[in-house]
Amino acid sequence: MVENKPVDTSEKSDSKKAAKKDAKKAEKAAKKAEHKANKDQSQTKVEDENDVSVGKYGTLPLIQSDITATNLDRKFTYVKDLNKSLSGSGVWVRARLHTVRARGKQCFIVLRQREFSVQVLVNVSDTVSKAMVKFSSTITKESIVDVEAKVAPVPTAVAGCSQQDVELLASQIWVVSASAPQLPLQIEDASRPEKADDPEGLNIRVNQDTRLDNRILDLRTPTNQAIFRLEAGVCRLFREVLTNKGFVEIHTPKIIPAASEGGANVFTVSYFKGSAYLAQSPQLYKQMAIAADFDKVFTIGAVFRAEDSNTHRHLTEFTGLDLEMAFSYHYHEVMLTIGDLFTQMFKGLRDQYKREIEIVGQQFSVEPFTFLDPPLVLQFEEGRKLLAEAGVEVGPEDDLSTPAEKLLGRLVKAKYDTDFYILDKYPLAVRPFYTMPDPNNPKTSNSYDMFMRGEEIISGAQRIHDPELLTERAKHHGIDLQKIASYIDAFKYGCPPHAGGGIGLERVVMLYLGLDNIRKTAMFPRDPKRITP
Amino acid sequence: MVENKPVDTSEKSDSKKAAKKDAKKAEKAAKKAEHKANKDQSQTKVEDENDVSVGKYGTLPLIQSDITATNLDRKFTYVKDLNKSLSGSGVWVRARLHTVRARGKQCFIVLRQREFSVQVLVNVSDTVSKAMVKFSSTITKESIVDVEAKVAPVPTAVAGCSQQDVELLASQIWVVSASAPQLPLQIEDASRPEKADDPEGLNIRVNQDTRLDNRILDLRTPTNQAIFRLEAGVCRLFREVLTNKGFVEIHTPKIIPAASEGGANVFTVSYFKGSAYLAQSPQLYKQMAIAADFDKVFTIGAVFRAEDSNTHRHLTEFTGLDLEMAFSYHYHEVMLTIGDLFTQMFKGLRDQYKREIEIVGQQFSVEPFTFLDPPLVLQFEEGRKLLAEAGVEVGPEDDLSTPAEKLLGRLVKAKYDTDFYILDKYPLAVRPFYTMPDPNNPKTSNSYDMFMRGEEIISGAQRIHDPELLTERAKHHGIDLQKIASYIDAFKYGCPPHAGGGIGLERVVMLYLGLDNIRKTAMFPRDPKRITP
Repeated sequence: MVENKPVDTSEKSDSKKAAKKDAKKAEKAAKKAEHKANKDQSQTKVEDENDVSVGKYGTLPLIQSDITATNLDRKFTYVKDLNKSLSGSGVWVRARLHTVRARGKQCFIVLRQREFSVQVLVNVSDTVSKAMVKFSSTITKESIVDVEAKVAPVPTAVAGCSQQDVELLASQIWVVSASAPQLPLQIEDASRPEKADDPEGLNIRVNQDTRLDNRILDLRTPTNQAIFRLEAGVCRLFREVLTNKGFVEIHTPKIIPAASEGGANVFTVSYFKGSAYLAQSPQLYKQMAIAADFDKVFTIGAVFRAEDSNTHRHLTEFTGLDLEMAFSYHYHEVMLTIGDLFTQMFKGLRDQYKREIEIVGQQFSVEPFTFLDPPLVLQFEEGRKLLAEAGVEVGPEDDLSTPAEKLLGRLVKAKYDTDFYILDKYPLAVRPFYTMPDPNNPKTSNSYDMFMRGEEIISGAQRIHDPELLTERAKHHGIDLQKIASYIDAFKYGCPPHAGGGIGLERVVMLYLGLDNIRKTAMFPRDPKRITP
Repeated sequence: MVENKPVDTSEKSDSKKAAKKDAKKAEKAAKKAEHKANKDQSQTKVEDENDVSVGKYGTLPLIQSDITATNLDRKFTYVKDLNKSLSGSGVWVRARLHTVRARGKQCFIVLRQREFSVQVLVNVSDTVSKAMVKFSSTITKESIVDVEAKVAPVPTAVAGCSQQDVELLASQIWVVSASAPQLPLQIEDASRPEKADDPEGLNIRVNQDTRLDNRILDLRTPTNQAIFRLEAGVCRLFREVLTNKGFVEIHTPKIIPAASEGGANVFTVSYFKGSAYLAQSPQLYKQMAIAADFDKVFTIGAVFRAEDSNTHRHLTEFTGLDLEMAFSYHYHEVMLTIGDLFTQMFKGLRDQYKREIEIVGQQFSVEPFTFLDPPLVLQFEEGRKLLAEAGVEVGPEDDLSTPAEKLLGRLVKAKYDTDFYILDKYPLAVRPFYTMPDPNNPKTSNSYDMFMRGEEIISGAQRIHDPELLTERAKHHGIDLQKIASYIDAFKYGCPPHAGGGIGLERVVMLYLGLDNIRKTAMFPRDPKRITP
């Protein structure tokens, strides 16, 4: 599981102390590399002495930021910007060679740049030699190439390319960075639609582990480009909405002093001569920031769970979007702030990430995400009733099982047409000791869960800010008071009433897009069986 | 060092599986808390039967979000908004009791709310009883109180308060959350100016460890409120500037498979039945994102260094602001992008955090931060010459020592009047193996450091994106190729030329504000001797 293929990638970590090594060797290596690159280029050039395209194709020397290079001022055109308005213009494009196919005196190339692609034609002519066409046809897939070309309109749309109205007529083609010829997975296979009703006969797909083992290639698919751009959008929207509401961003430590025994679900770290633990949640620190007068705080960072859960929705390391907020008299001030945060995030995604959502939808069947503004708030009691009407009984002091949550999600969707809702007033018995009891009903608590497509996406509550009540509740839960002394002490010097919650970024993106596995929304996922790459 | 005072603060972590415990006990605890609060209140109320202020002061019941409470709609006024324009108006304020002083029939209170403070007068009158004044004088410092009052202009400015033009004449005062009477540090002491030329006779200061041991109290000082608001600003500006430049935010794993032996400066983590390591840098993952076509990426997250360095500028865990960017032909495209990022961040801080900078300046002597637009770029060679002119010789293939860096910072400041500059073209011999050699000078490399007030703030370079040259350079550095196989493999399937760098958030804030210790800019700092609170 744990492969030992490490790299000291800390910037300049050893440079200060490193003994000055023999610089001669370094020179030699650098020169050799330069020489090799020049040789590669010249090799191609001299292949045919009558070649009319000499100097128009080949392998570029390694781009080493050579100040004597003649191409330093060259401007590239993005593939996404190639359209009929550029017809007749000459452009330079740097992109990946997605596919290549030679046919007689022609070579058809598809260039891919992130989610976009365009067809290139290398055609034998007065200025394009057979040798250049031949060279083009031998460039390995996934190599990065610089192409000089004329933009030409096409009579019929180019199938399979994002840029369907034009193609490029190549006049130069240079390999910037060659890919190894054998790819562990084909981008075309990894990009193929995986819809239940897919009419396509071909069904070569790439399984999850092969994808993750070769994540650099897998991430190049249009769907993955779209997923991770949208994921960046979720973070951005989360921060923008909260910053506008007066929240302050904080950073909480991941290395914490924790229970050595009983520390279920906690990873242990060797810390010099002692040991420490990885934080399962920034909650204590968020609460300390509230006790320290920061009023409204959020934090985005790694959260660690040492649970041996191999499910579609658990990771051992994920990105937590956490917030905590002081309120005046009622925790609904906070709950509705979180509700509105989601509404604004959903609006932002819908309006600003339309294209990304479409691209993902081309590979995976997804029903568009629905939501209400303001969001639907149901009482736990109402949820129980809906479930009872559907034949599923949940006790008044029981938690919802995962299947019950999913069913309730479907019932709510059918009744209210929303994929997002808030369930308020959970039974006190099923919430952690620090949850504030409901003063108006001794069996319930000031706590809430929020759901996306029937899966819990955030669990939050008013926290007990009084050390005496907190002590009582901890005793009631059978918790060793010695071990939570510092938690209780945090409230000794005056603390405003407060509430909050935490969201898993990867889970939000998975559920928003309707994907089936959280490993699709973690760039480099970690689970009990995987810590590579 | 490692205290065992843990809390399971994972939201709802055990609620799903928790056996439903005896809910009766919970009810009892909740009722008891409620009862106690009511008792507290009534105790105060009945103290004096002729008390004209009955029902106007005391200790509020614990704020438990009681839906029968009558104060749910009450709106509070912020202390910062209290000024002459409100003269004569009645307001409610929730704030901390900063100081209290009784004098005859009067009680003077200073209320503090984050960086702001206001004087409150509780004065015996027709509607304010002696008992209410007495009660007010006994409220413990740092307690949170709700005060109803009339805003009154004052003839002479109130010394020692941020709101100097008005005071509050109290008509009600209620304790919302009482502080323990004994404080481990006084906010006044922790807020006292620490300037060399401080004319004040009193010199009671709070030392760093006492501050950090009681961080919740320490963070309440105006200076700390300002520092961490400005720190949030640095992150926000970093992201905004880069997002505008087309960068995508990514999240990189902190748990990594790494060298078990030789893993200098790396923390080890128990990972189920195996072990893993904490990432010292997101560099490999940033580079993988570039190889995976994300083009320009940044990431903000925890970075871990197991160095036993007990200096003013080292932490074992800090917040890394990292970026990586593909370029066309020359790494200066990236270097100047980073330079402009700093310029824009400095402008943003100067323009949007004026008040915070002033507040910090009231406690610590700080010269305002100076910078040029565009930033100054010096060649390493020029730096050496400046140092040589000042009598400090640095060999052409040596790195700069920390004292040399500081001296160079002063020389550059004197000559160019800038606290920020870029030093380009470091000797190849002093940079890590993955640094691209300079093709135009075999002894130098395509690498740069950037400095703030003479301290290195970012170290970056063009990375070698060719697996063959990378292998050669690794061999030259005597690195075991087996151990970096996955790093080298990342470039096998085509990778654009790229460069980048990483910044430590806490260090940027420390140097921008001219503070003397990085522990002042980490909310909960971690060093070899401290992992609490």
